[in-house]
Amino acid sequence: MQNLNEDTITHAVIEQIAHTPNPRLKRILTSLVQHLHNFAREVELSEDELMTAIQFLTRSGQMCSDKRQEFILLSDTLGLSTLVMAMNNRKPPACTESTVFGPFHVENAPVFPLGADVANGAKGEPCFVSGVIRGVDGEPVPHARIEVWQADEDGYYDVQYAGLGKFQGRGVLCADQDGRYYFRSIVAEPYPIPHDGPVGDMLRATERHPWRPAHLHFLIKQTGYQTLITHIFRKGGTYLDSDAVFGVRSTLIADWLRHEPGRAPDGSIMEVPFYTLEYDFVLNPAKKDR
Amino acid sequence: MQNLNEDTITHAVIEQIAHTPNPRLKRILTSLVQHLHNFAREVELSEDELMTAIQFLTRSGQMCSDKRQEFILLSDTLGLSTLVMAMNNRKPPACTESTVFGPFHVENAPVFPLGADVANGAKGEPCFVSGVIRGVDGEPVPHARIEVWQADEDGYYDVQYAGLGKFQGRGVLCADQDGRYYFRSIVAEPYPIPHDGPVGDMLRATERHPWRPAHLHFLIKQTGYQTLITHIFRKGGTYLDSDAVFGVRSTLIADWLRHEPGRAPDGSIMEVPFYTLEYDFVLNPAKKDR
Repeated sequence: MQNLNEDTITHAVIEQIAHTPNPRLKRILTSLVQHLHNFAREVELSEDELMTAIQFLTRSGQMCSDKRQEFILLSDTLGLSTLVMAMNNRKPPACTESTVFGPFHVENAPVFPLGADVANGAKGEPCFVSGVIRGVDGEPVPHARIEVWQADEDGYYDVQYAGLGKFQGRGVLCADQDGRYYFRSIVAEPYPIPHDGPVGDMLRATERHPWRPAHLHFLIKQTGYQTLITHIFRKGGTYLDSDAVFGVRSTLIADWLRHEPGRAPDGSIMEVPFYTLEYDFVLNPAKKDR
Repeated sequence: MQNLNEDTITHAVIEQIAHTPNPRLKRILTSLVQHLHNFAREVELSEDELMTAIQFLTRSGQMCSDKRQEFILLSDTLGLSTLVMAMNNRKPPACTESTVFGPFHVENAPVFPLGADVANGAKGEPCFVSGVIRGVDGEPVPHARIEVWQADEDGYYDVQYAGLGKFQGRGVLCADQDGRYYFRSIVAEPYPIPHDGPVGDMLRATERHPWRPAHLHFLIKQTGYQTLITHIFRKGGTYLDSDAVFGVRSTLIADWLRHEPGRAPDGSIMEVPFYTLEYDFVLNPAKKDR
C-alpha cells in the first residue's frame, strides 16, 4: 500500500474497510468513501478548498450545544434530512405524511393534561388545537403520546432564549381513549433558522434565505404504529413555496381559523381574538424491523 | 417547492444553489449535494443512521482545538487527503513527490540557524540531517525556507504534551546560497495517530490500526517554485505498507544510517551512537494561478 495516486487511492481505502465486522457499517463506509472521492475528483478539489471545508465542519461542531445543532441545520438545508425522511417513511396515501424533525426538539418536555395551555407564557395570539388520531382503517388510536413544539410570535423557540429557565411552547400530551387530543397554545409564525453560524454563512454565500413557513411540530407515538414526525403548516402564510429546509407538503397545510372575542372551544370566554386549528392524523401500522 | 420526495429533492436543492454568485462555490456545492444524496440513496440511509452521523460530526468538531484537528484526521484516514494531495501535485517525475500534510503542523515554529538542534530537548537518539534543494534542471535553489516537524521517540509531537510550554522537534531553517541545508534532530519513530476520539472509534469499528511509519515532515518554500509538502520515511521501519493515512511513497523512503560514537557531521564528538540522514529535494517550478 505505497505510491497511491488519484486513481488507486479509493480502492485502497475500501480494501482497508473490508474487514469491518458489522456488514451495515461496512456497506455505509464503502459507499461513503466512493461518493466522497468521486465528489473530490469531479470538482478537482484544491488543497485550500479541502482546508476550508475542514474549517467549516470544525466551526459547525463548535457551534453545537445542548440547545443548538448546527449539523442538523446543515443536513436540513442541503436537503439530506428531507431525502432520508422520505426514504424511511414510504406509506399508503391515506396516512399523514412525515416531514423533517428539525433541530429544536428537546428531551424531557413537560407533560400536560389534555386541554392545557402548552404555551406556558410564550408570546403570541391564543390558539386552540384539536383533532383525532386514527389508524389507516379509520379506527381511533387511543392514548397515543403526542409531543408538540413551536416558535413564538417573534419566531423563537424557548431554547433560543438564553437563561429562560423553563419550557415554553412545547409539551407532551396523551390522547383520550377515542383518539381525541386538544390543547391550547399560540399561533405559529414564520421564522428564520439560526443563521449566525456556518450554515448561515452558506445560505448567504448561495443567496438563499433562512426562513421557514409557520408550522407546529408533532411527534406521535403509539405501540403498534409507526412513529409520526411531522408539522402542520399554516395556510396562506409566507415561505410555503421556499421553505429553507424543503419540508412543506401540501397535505400538511391547514387553516388556522380566526375568531372574534367570545366563547372558546374549551368553554372559556376569550376577551381577545383567538384561533382554532383542527387536524386529524392517520398513523401507519408499525414496520417490521429490518 | 412543495411535496418533494426522494426522487425530486436533489434537483430542488440544486435549483436553490443555482443563484450562487461565486461560480466555483456553485460548482462545488452542486456536486456535493448530488454525491451526498446519491450516497444516502445508495445505502438507503435510515433516520437513526443520519443522527449517528450528525453526532459523529458533532463530537469530531468538539474534539478540535488549537492542538487537535479531528477533521484532518478524518480526511486523512478516509484517504481524502491523499486524493486531494495527488490531484493538486501532478509534476514531472524528476521532482520530489508530495505527501499528506497531517494535523501536527503549527504556525510560528521557532527559527533556527543551519546546523542547530531542532529537537530542542525532545527525547530520542541524535540524528544529523542534510541535503541540497534543487530545481528540475539541477540548479541549486538558494535560501529556501525549510520547515521540519516530527514526533519524539515515544511517538508524540510537542503539541500533544499538555503544558509543555515550548516547541520541540520542529523548526524553520533557511538553506544556504548553494541550496544546502543541515540540522540536528532526533530519529523518527512510528506512532499511532490520536485515536481517543471519533476517528479512533471509526478505526476500531473497521478493525484498522492507527499507526504511521516513522517519518520526518518537510515544508519547503521558495519564490518561483511550487511549495513542497512532504515527509521522508524511514527505510526498514514498520507500517510502511499499512500507513493509517495512506501517505507512503517509495521515492520518499530513505536510510537513517547508524554510527558508533565518534565525530559527527557537524564536527562535534558524540559519546553515544548517532544517525545521519541525507536527502536532496527537487522543487517544481511554480504553477500559474488558475
